[in-house]
Amino acid sequence: MLRPLMLHEIDEEARASSLVYTFGGVEPVATLLRGTDLRTSTLDCFAGLVRRAEDLPSVVCDPRYLNPQTGPFYVEGARPGDTLAVHFASIEPRHDWGVSSTVPFFGALTASRDTALLHEALPERTWIYDLDSAEGQVHFRALDSGLTVPLPLDPMHGTVGVAPPLGEVRSSLTPGSWGGNMDTPEMRAGATCYLGVNVEGALLSFGDGHARQGEGESCGVAVECAMDTTLRVDVVSGVVTPWPRIETDDHWMTTGSAKPLEDAFRIAHTQMVRWLEDLLDLSTMDAYQLVAQVALTPVANVCDTVYTVVCKVPKAFFPGVVAMHGVHDALRRP
Amino acid sequence: MLRPLMLHEIDEEARASSLVYTFGGVEPVATLLRGTDLRTSTLDCFAGLVRRAEDLPSVVCDPRYLNPQTGPFYVEGARPGDTLAVHFASIEPRHDWGVSSTVPFFGALTASRDTALLHEALPERTWIYDLDSAEGQVHFRALDSGLTVPLPLDPMHGTVGVAPPLGEVRSSLTPGSWGGNMDTPEMRAGATCYLGVNVEGALLSFGDGHARQGEGESCGVAVECAMDTTLRVDVVSGVVTPWPRIETDDHWMTTGSAKPLEDAFRIAHTQMVRWLEDLLDLSTMDAYQLVAQVALTPVANVCDTVYTVVCKVPKAFFPGVVAMHGVHDALRRP
Amino acid sequence: MLRPLMLHEIDEEARASSLVYTFGGVEPVATLLRGTDLRTSTLDCFAGLVRRAEDLPSVVCDPRYLNPQTGPFYVEGARPGDTLAVHFASIEPRHDWGVSSTVPFFGALTASRDTALLHEALPERTWIYDLDSAEGQVHFRALDSGLTVPLPLDPMHGTVGVAPPLGEVRSSLTPGSWGGNMDTPEMRAGATCYLGVNVEGALLSFGDGHARQGEGESCGVAVECAMDTTLRVDVVSGVVTPWPRIETDDHWMTTGSAKPLEDAFRIAHTQMVRWLEDLLDLSTMDAYQLVAQVALTPVANVCDTVYTVVCKVPKAFFPGVVAMHGVHDALRRP
Amino acid sequence: MLRPLMLHEIDEEARASSLVYTFGGVEPVATLLRGTDLRTSTLDCFAGLVRRAEDLPSVVCDPRYLNPQTGPFYVEGARPGDTLAVHFASIEPRHDWGVSSTVPFFGALTASRDTALLHEALPERTWIYDLDSAEGQVHFRALDSGLTVPLPLDPMHGTVGVAPPLGEVRSSLTPGSWGGNMDTPEMRAGATCYLGVNVEGALLSFGDGHARQGEGESCGVAVECAMDTTLRVDVVSGVVTPWPRIETDDHWMTTGSAKPLEDAFRIAHTQMVRWLEDLLDLSTMDAYQLVAQVALTPVANVCDTVYTVVCKVPKAFFPGVVAMHGVHDALRRP
Repeated sequence: MLRPLMLHEIDEEARASSLVYTFGGVEPVATLLRGTDLRTSTLDCFAGLVRRAEDLPSVVCDPRYLNPQTGPFYVEGARPGDTLAVHFASIEPRHDWGVSSTVPFFGALTASRDTALLHEALPERTWIYDLDSAEGQVHFRALDSGLTVPLPLDPMHGTVGVAPPLGEVRSSLTPGSWGGNMDTPEMRAGATCYLGVNVEGALLSFGDGHARQGEGESCGVAVECAMDTTLRVDVVSGVVTPWPRIETDDHWMTTGSAKPLEDAFRIAHTQMVRWLEDLLDLSTMDAYQLVAQVALTPVANVCDTVYTVVCKVPKAFFPGVVAMHGVHDALRRP
Repeated sequence: MLRPLMLHEIDEEARASSLVYTFGGVEPVATLLRGTDLRTSTLDCFAGLVRRAEDLPSVVCDPRYLNPQTGPFYVEGARPGDTLAVHFASIEPRHDWGVSSTVPFFGALTASRDTALLHEALPERTWIYDLDSAEGQVHFRALDSGLTVPLPLDPMHGTVGVAPPLGEVRSSLTPGSWGGNMDTPEMRAGATCYLGVNVEGALLSFGDGHARQGEGESCGVAVECAMDTTLRVDVVSGVVTPWPRIETDDHWMTTGSAKPLEDAFRIAHTQMVRWLEDLLDLSTMDAYQLVAQVALTPVANVCDTVYTVVCKVPKAFFPGVVAMHGVHDALRRP
Repeated sequence: MLRPLMLHEIDEEARASSLVYTFGGVEPVATLLRGTDLRTSTLDCFAGLVRRAEDLPSVVCDPRYLNPQTGPFYVEGARPGDTLAVHFASIEPRHDWGVSSTVPFFGALTASRDTALLHEALPERTWIYDLDSAEGQVHFRALDSGLTVPLPLDPMHGTVGVAPPLGEVRSSLTPGSWGGNMDTPEMRAGATCYLGVNVEGALLSFGDGHARQGEGESCGVAVECAMDTTLRVDVVSGVVTPWPRIETDDHWMTTGSAKPLEDAFRIAHTQMVRWLEDLLDLSTMDAYQLVAQVALTPVANVCDTVYTVVCKVPKAFFPGVVAMHGVHDALRRP
Repeated sequence: MLRPLMLHEIDEEARASSLVYTFGGVEPVATLLRGTDLRTSTLDCFAGLVRRAEDLPSVVCDPRYLNPQTGPFYVEGARPGDTLAVHFASIEPRHDWGVSSTVPFFGALTASRDTALLHEALPERTWIYDLDSAEGQVHFRALDSGLTVPLPLDPMHGTVGVAPPLGEVRSSLTPGSWGGNMDTPEMRAGATCYLGVNVEGALLSFGDGHARQGEGESCGVAVECAMDTTLRVDVVSGVVTPWPRIETDDHWMTTGSAKPLEDAFRIAHTQMVRWLEDLLDLSTMDAYQLVAQVALTPVANVCDTVYTVVCKVPKAFFPGVVAMHGVHDALRRP
C-alpha cells in the first residue's frame, strides 16, 4: 500500500488486534515506502495493564502477551542480504505517566529462569512515575519512604527488530541478531538503527517505549510507557549487517546480544573492528588496536533472555568518513 | 616517617629495586600521612622495555615482571574494617610517547589462557603513540597503512590497590576486591578511589598508567606510559567497603571484578543498591528500582584475569547528599 | 489417524519432503497413539550430504537445512501442562558408516558466532567412520597419520523435542526447555525422555542420530549417522515438566540448557532438587543436601547455541521410589 | 630430611600449629623423598569445629581459618618446569562421622559473593553423617523428615596443590593451575595427581577430605571428614604440566579451573587434545576429533571461587600407550 498506516487513527479494539508478540511468524500490517514518514504509536510492555502501584505484573498480565509490538511492517525493496535503516525522528510519551516494577525471577540482581537458584522471589512491586514532557522530567517516588527524585526524560524504544533468520519465530522478549528486545538507551530520537534483512520486506516491528532507562536495566523493567513515534526507513542494498548497528550524529555503534555478557561484548567489539576496517581501510590488527583505545562500552541490558552490549565510537575522531552510504544523514533531513 | 617519600628523587637503580609485582607479600617502602601530598612516578606496564614497534612484549619482557607497581605505602591509621580514600590530584605522562601492543593469548577478542581454544595466537604487534601534553593529544599511527588519528589525551591509572584479605598475595595483573588491575578510564585525575582495608596500613600500591584507554580495553593493552602522579590519602574509619568505589565531583561509582562479566555487573550494581540505601535511606527494593533507572554502566576491562564493570550514578540527581563523610571534597581541596 | 506412520515405508522423495528444521511452526505428519510402537528412521545432521573425507559441510550443505528432524508427530491426548514420555526402544545405525567433521566457527574449542574473536577459522575436516553393528564398534581413522582406534558403538539421538512455548519456532540446531538439540549421550535406547507439553498434541520431532559422542561434543559434531529407531510414547497428565528429564532403569536425570554453562548446571541441579523433594517428600534444604552428595554431572554439549548439562541420580539409592507414575517401566515392557 | 614426617605422631597442639591456609607463602614442614611413603592425616574443612547439627559454620568458624591443609612438603628434586606426581595409596576417614552444611552465600544454587544478588541467604543448616568404613557406607539423615539414605563411602581429597606461579599466595579455598581446591571425586585412592612445579621443592599441601561428594558439589560442602592418608610422590623431570592432570589404572584425566564454567571445560578439553597429540603422535585436528568422541566430562565443582571441570578418557581405548614415563604404574606398585 502506498499510504503508510497511521495506527493512532485506528480505534482501540482494532489496534489491539494488530499487536504482535513475536518477530517472525506474523503477516505484515502495512507496507512502508522508503523515505516516507511513519507516525504511529506503541503500547507499553505490559500492554497498559499495569497502571497503579497495586497492579502486579504477575497478577494482571498474561505471560503470553507481554511486550506487544507495533507491526510488522513490510519495507518496500528490502531483500535478504540488505540492511534496513530505521531512523527515529521522534519518540514521545503518549501519556503523562510511566510504570516500572519488579517481576518475580526476572532481572539482573535476582535468581532467574536461567540463573536457577533455590531462593524465593524478591518482592514484586510497582512504581508509577509522573512524566512531565514540558519540563523534560520523570519523577521517581519511593514506595517505602517519602523520597522523590526528578530525573531527565530520555525516551527510547527498548525493542526494534525484523524477522529472524532460519525460519525462526522469536518472542518479543528476546534480543538477537535480528534486533528485538535489545533495551539500549541509545535507541532514542535522532538514532538510525541498522538491521540485517532476513526475509523479503524485512518485517519491521518495534515497541517497548521507555521514558528513561539505566544502562543494564538491572531490575528488568525501565520506566515503561506508551509512545507516539515517528520514523522513516531506507534500505542499504547489498550491505550485510550481521548484528544491529546504530548511528547518531555523533557516534557509530555496534551491538551484540549473547550470554555470558563477555560474549555480547565480544560480538559488539568484533563488529566494530570489522566496521572500522571497512570505513578506514585498516588492517584487522590496526582496527583492533584503534577500537581498544577509542571504544565506549555502555551495557544495554543484563536482564533479558540474552544480554546486550553496545560498542560506541565517536565520529568526530574520523572527520569526513561516511558509513552506510550516508543513509543516516539522508534520513535525518527529510 | 613524617616526610612522604619522593620517589622521583631516587636514582633509577634504587627505584627499580623498589618496584613490586604483587598486592600483598611485600614490605612498605614508605609511610603516608593522611592529607599530605605524595608526588611520585610509575613505570609503564612493560617497565619501559617496549619502546619501538620492533619490541615485542613476549620477547623483551619477562612474564614474571609485568605491570610494576609503585609502593606499597603504609597509610598511617588505616586498619582492617576501614576504608582508604586515595585522591588523584594529577596524573601526567612522564614522557612524550606511549605504547600499546597485542600480546599472544591476551585480550578480549582472542583465545586466551582461560578461554582456551585451539587457534594460533593473533599476530603480536607494537604501536608507538606520540603524546602531546600541550595539545592534549595522543596520536594513533596505523602500522599497515598511512592512517593517523589524533585522540584526546585522558591519563589514568589502570592499577590501584591494597593488600588482599585472607593472607593472599595477588599478581599486579589481576583485579579484585582489593582493587588491583581494574583498568577503568574513570581512574583519572580528580577521582577519589575508595578501597577496603584488609591489613594494618592498607599497603597501597599503584601503577599501570594509560595515556588513554577504550572502555573494555579490548586488545588487552591501553596507551601505556610512565606517569608523574600526585595523590593524597585519607582513612574513613569504621566504614567497610567490600569492593572498590570511586567518587568524582560528578559521579558516585561502584566496581565489580569477576567472571563471567555479568557477575562483575551484578557486584557493581548490588554495591550501588547498597550504597544508595545508605545515602538516601531507602528500602532495598526502592534502591534497586532507582539504580535500574539512573545507572550508567561503562565496562572497564574484558581482558584481565577477571573482568571489571563500573556502575556510575550522577550526583546531581541527589543534591546535598554526601558520601563517605565528605572525604572526596576534603581531599580535592587541600 | 489410528495406524502410526511407518516412515521407512515411504519412498525417499516423499520422505525428504517431510523433514523439518524447526521445533514449532510445522504441521504434524502423523498422529501417535499412546503405547503404540513407532518405527521410523532419521537422517543424519547433514541430511546425508557429507559422505566422504572430501565433503566439507560448509561446501555441500545449505545452512538453512541442517539437522533435519523426523516429525512432528501429534501425540493423542497431550495437552499443555502435561508431560510427554518418549521411550526409545531401539536406536540402530541405518548404514555401515558415520561421519564427523569440524565446521568453521562451530564447536567448544574454537571462536564461534557468540564467542566472536578475530581468529581465522580452524581447518574444516571430515572424518568417515566405519560402523560395525555386529561387533558393536565405531572405527576412528586419523586423517594425518595411520592411527585407527576402535571405539564402542553407543547409538543415541542428539535431538528430541516438542513445539516450544510462547508461539516460538526454534531451529533444530538449538536446545531449550522444549528439548531440541540437547546432544547428550544419555538419550540412548532404554531411556525415556520426559518433555513438557506446550501445545495440543505436543508435536514431537527427533533426529540427529549419533553412533557415539563424547560428553561435551567438543568439536561440535559427533559420529553422525542415519538411524532406524523404534519408540513409544505416553502422556503423564497434569504433570508439568519445566525442563526435559530422562529416566532409565538405573537413573533419574534432569537437564538444563543455557549459557553460561554454570546456568545449565544450575537449572539441571535445581530441577533435581525439586524432583527429589517430590519423590522423597523432602524439604528443599534436605533435597539440596542430598543432591550435593549423590549427583553425577556429565556435560552434554558445549557447542550448540546454548549448552546442556545433565544431573543424574542413581535410582538404587532409593529402592521402591517410582517417578512419573511409573510410565518408564510401563513403556519399556510393551 | 630422610625420614618422612609422620604427622599423626605429633601431638594435637603442634599439629594445629602446622596447618596452613594458603598455597604459597609458607615454609615447608618436612621434606619428602621420591618414592617413600608419607602417612599423615588431614583435618576436615572446618578444622573439626562443626560436629553437631547445632554447629553452624558461620558461627563456629573463623573465615580466615577454613580448609586447613597439611603441609607444605618440600619434594626433593622438584624444580620449576618439572611435574610433581602425587599418588594416593590410601585415603581413609579418621573418625566415624562426617559433616556437611549449607553456608550463607556459598554454593551453586544460591546467590554468592560473585553472583551478587539481592536475596537473603538460604538457611544455614548442618547435617551429620555416620560413616561406616566396614560396610563402606555414609548415612544421610534428613533434618526435616525421617528419611535416611545409606550411600556408598567414596573417600577423596578435595584439595591438593603446590605453590602457585608469579609469586602469588592463594587461599586454600580456591582452585587453579597449581591445583588447590579442585573438589573432584576423581581424587580418590588409586589416583595419581600430576601438578606443574612452580618453585623449588614444589611445596605440596593437601586436605579437605570428603567421605563422598556429588559431581559439582552443588551445596558447596561435601561429606567432610578428617582423613588418614598415605601417599607417595615422584618427579617427572622436564615435563611441563600447565594444569593438573590425574591418572588412574583406567583413565587419563585433565582438569581446568575457571569461570565461566565453559572456560573450565575449554581448558580441560584443550589440555586433553594436547595430551593425546603427544601420547598418540596425532595432529591437532585429529586429536580434537578423537577427544570429541571419547571424552567423559564430569563436573568437579561449581561452588568455589572458580569452577573445575574434568575431562576423562579411558586408557583401554589405547592399549600399550604410557603417559608421564609410566610414573603412575611405578608409584602404585611400591
